[in-house]
Amino acid sequence: MTEGTVYEALTVDTLPARLERVAALVAQVGAGDWQVEEVGDGNLNLVFIVSGPRGKAIVKQALPYVRLVGDSWPLPLYRAFYEYHALTRQAARDPGSVPVIHHFDKDQALIVMEYLSPHVILRRKLIAGERVAGLAAFLGRFCARTAFRGSELSMASPDKKADVALFAGNVEIPAITEALVFTDPYYAAEMNSHTPGLEPVIARLRGDVALKVKAQQALQRFVSNTETMVHGDLHSGSIMSTAVDSRVIDPEFVQYGPLGFDIGMLCANFLMAYFSQPAHRGDDLSAYQDWILGVITEVCETFETEFRHLWSTERTGILYPAALFEDQGHDSAPACDAVLTGLWRDAWTVCGIEMHRRCLSLAHNADFEDIPDPAIRAPLEARNLLLGADLIRLADTITAAEEVCERARRYNVTDVI
Amino acid sequence: MTEGTVYEALTVDTLPARLERVAALVAQVGAGDWQVEEVGDGNLNLVFIVSGPRGKAIVKQALPYVRLVGDSWPLPLYRAFYEYHALTRQAARDPGSVPVIHHFDKDQALIVMEYLSPHVILRRKLIAGERVAGLAAFLGRFCARTAFRGSELSMASPDKKADVALFAGNVEIPAITEALVFTDPYYAAEMNSHTPGLEPVIARLRGDVALKVKAQQALQRFVSNTETMVHGDLHSGSIMSTAVDSRVIDPEFVQYGPLGFDIGMLCANFLMAYFSQPAHRGDDLSAYQDWILGVITEVCETFETEFRHLWSTERTGILYPAALFEDQGHDSAPACDAVLTGLWRDAWTVCGIEMHRRCLSLAHNADFEDIPDPAIRAPLEARNLLLGADLIRLADTITAAEEVCERARRYNVTDVI
Repeated sequence: MTEGTVYEALTVDTLPARLERVAALVAQVGAGDWQVEEVGDGNLNLVFIVSGPRGKAIVKQALPYVRLVGDSWPLPLYRAFYEYHALTRQAARDPGSVPVIHHFDKDQALIVMEYLSPHVILRRKLIAGERVAGLAAFLGRFCARTAFRGSELSMASPDKKADVALFAGNVEIPAITEALVFTDPYYAAEMNSHTPGLEPVIARLRGDVALKVKAQQALQRFVSNTETMVHGDLHSGSIMSTAVDSRVIDPEFVQYGPLGFDIGMLCANFLMAYFSQPAHRGDDLSAYQDWILGVITEVCETFETEFRHLWSTERTGILYPAALFEDQGHDSAPACDAVLTGLWRDAWTVCGIEMHRRCLSLAHNADFEDIPDPAIRAPLEARNLLLGADLIRLADTITAAEEVCERARRYNVTDVI
Repeated sequence: MTEGTVYEALTVDTLPARLERVAALVAQVGAGDWQVEEVGDGNLNLVFIVSGPRGKAIVKQALPYVRLVGDSWPLPLYRAFYEYHALTRQAARDPGSVPVIHHFDKDQALIVMEYLSPHVILRRKLIAGERVAGLAAFLGRFCARTAFRGSELSMASPDKKADVALFAGNVEIPAITEALVFTDPYYAAEMNSHTPGLEPVIARLRGDVALKVKAQQALQRFVSNTETMVHGDLHSGSIMSTAVDSRVIDPEFVQYGPLGFDIGMLCANFLMAYFSQPAHRGDDLSAYQDWILGVITEVCETFETEFRHLWSTERTGILYPAALFEDQGHDSAPACDAVLTGLWRDAWTVCGIEMHRRCLSLAHNADFEDIPDPAIRAPLEARNLLLGADLIRLADTITAAEEVCERARRYNVTDVI
C-alpha cells in the first residue's frame, strides 16, 4: 500500500496482502505468516492487532462514518491525519505518554503503532475494581505538560498560529463534541437516551436557565479558545493501563481549546466510575471508591505542581514574560495563580457537563451501561447528574479537587431519586 | 500589471504606466491623463490618490517594512491579502461601512478602492474640534454587527473554522499589537518613549503586579480567543468622516479575537481625544469635551442595542441555540447578558491598555503628540494613564459607559502630576 492509493477499508482477510510491503510494519512484526484480529470497540474506527513471527503491532484505520450509528452518519477520513499530528506533538511534550508511531498513510487514513501489552482500557479496569500504580501522577503530568507546552506560555507564536491553522481543519470531529457534550444534554435532542426514572432530575437541569447559560458559555470557550492543543476526548476509554503503566491513546478529537478542557473531562470520568461502583463491587466497595477519589485528588495536585514547575522553568512564550515580573523584581506567582484560576473554572465546568452528557446524550459510559438493572442504575446516575450540576454552578469557586471529592462522598450516600 | 508579477513598490511617477491596464481602475477614473499624489500618513503603507478625467480612486500598496521605523523592521506584504479579505467581510456584515473595493492584486500587495471625499481622518477632526453627525450610531452598529456576524453566534461553524485557519496566517501584524499594546507599556521596552514628567505615574503602573496580571490576561485572551473577526486597529486614525458620514478603513491588523476588542480600542481613542482637548480648544472646550463623552456613551449604547437585536433576530450559530432557551419557554436574555458581561470586561480592559500604550510604547497619538509643550502634554497624558489603570482594574465591575465617562470627568479636573 502506497501513498496516493484510493481509500479502502481493511479487513482481517485483506490486511496481510495490503500491508505486507509497509516496511515499518514488517520491521515490528517480522515477515511471514501474520495473524490479524479486529478489536475496535470504539465508536469510529477499525483497530487490528497484527501478530507476526517477531512481534505485534496495531493497525488503526478510520472509517468514513460513525461506527456506533452506521453509514447514515458520515465522518471524514482526515481525522487520522489529525490523530497522527496530535500523537507526534503529545510524544514531544510528554515523552512516553502515547504509543510509538511506526507508520502513517494519509490516503488510507491508517496509523501503524505500538502494540501495548498487557495494557487494557482503563475503563474496564475501573469497572473490574483494579488499581493502577502511578496512574494519577502519570495523568496529572500528561495534562499539565501537554497544556503548558502546547500554549503560548511556551510555544513561539508563529509556530502556535501555524498549528491553530492546521488543526482548524478538523471540523466534523470537534463538532460531535460541540453538540453531544455541550448542548444535547439540555434539551430533547433526537439521539439522546437516558435510564427511565431520571426524568425528574433531567427536568431540573433543563429548567435551570442559569445552568444552561454556564454550559453554553463553556461551549463558547470551547469553540473560540485556542489556548492549547487538547486531546479532546480524554476519558478512561482513551487510556490503556497495566497494573503499573499507562498510556494515552485516540486523540482524534484533537483541537486547540481551553487549557482546562482535558483534565476536566478526565476528572468527570473518574467521578462516574466512582458513582457506578455500588453496582460493581462487594465488600471492597468503600476502599475502591476511596482509591478512585484519591486518584482524582492526586491528578489535580500533580497537575498544579507540574504546571507551576513548567511556569517557572519553561515560560518562553509571549505570555506573562519575565520582563514584566521577575526582571522587575516581582514574583510572577500571582500571574500563575490567575491562569490556574481560569483553568480550573473551565475544567470543573467541563467536568460537570461531561457527567451530564454521558448519562443523557448519545454516547453513554460502560461504567453505568454495564449495570443491567435500570432500577439500580438510575439512582447512581442521578447522584452523578446532581454533582455535575453543582460543579457547573460552582466552578468559579472551587479551590481544590478535595472539595469536589467531599461533595461526591455526600451524594454517594444520598438517595436523590 | 497582472497577477504573478514580482512585487515592486509604486511611485507617483511609475503608477500610471504600471496600472493603466487595470480595468477596474480605469473604469473609476477614466482613461487618459492621470494625476497621482502620495498621501500615506500611516505607519505601514503607500497610499496614492489617482485622479483621471472621470474621477478619483485610492491605490493602497503595502510596503515590505514598517514605514515608521524603516527597512530595519521588515513586515510581510501578505497583510494586503488579509486587509482585502477583512474588507469584503466587513462590507458583507455592515454594508456601506467600509470603502468599496475595485481591485486586488495579491502579488503587488495592492488594493484599488473608493476615494472617499470630502472625508478626512477622524483623529484630525477631533483635534480640530469638529463634530460628526451620526458618528456614534455608525460606530456602535459597525462594532456590534461585525462582532456578532463574525462569530459562532451567527456563522456556521465550518465557515468560521475555515476563516480562523485563513486569518491565522496573519502572524507578524498581530504580533505588533501583542508586543506594543499589551506588554511594552509595562516595562522599559527598547522602542518605548514617553513625555518627560510622567515617570512617577509610569513607576506606579509598572509596580502594580495585579494590573500587569490583568493586562497579560487580556493578552492571553487576545492571542487565544477566536470569538469573532476583529478589525484589530480601530482607532480614530482608522475612521474617515465628513460632517455627516463615516467609514472604517485599514483593517490590516485583522485577526480572530475577542468580541469586545474593537469597541474597547475605539473607546480608548475617544477618551484620549477627550483628555487632550484642553491643549487644543479655547472657549468651546467644555462643550466639545461633553460631545466626545456623549459619543462614547452613544457608541456603547448603540452597540448593546444592536447586539441584542441581532441576538434575537440572527442567532443562527451553534452557540446559545433556541433549543435550549426559547423552544423550552425560557427567555434567552440571561444568556445574552452573560455574553455581554464578558464582552464588556474584555472591552474595558483593552480600553485601559490602549490608553497606556499610546503614551508609553512606540506609536503615539497625534491627539497628544500635536501638543508641542511637554509641560502641557504630560499632565494631560497622566490623567489618561490613571484612568486607563482604573479601567483595567475595574473592568469586571463596570456596568455602563457612563461610569467611565464620569470617571473621565473627575480626572479631567484633577492635577495628578
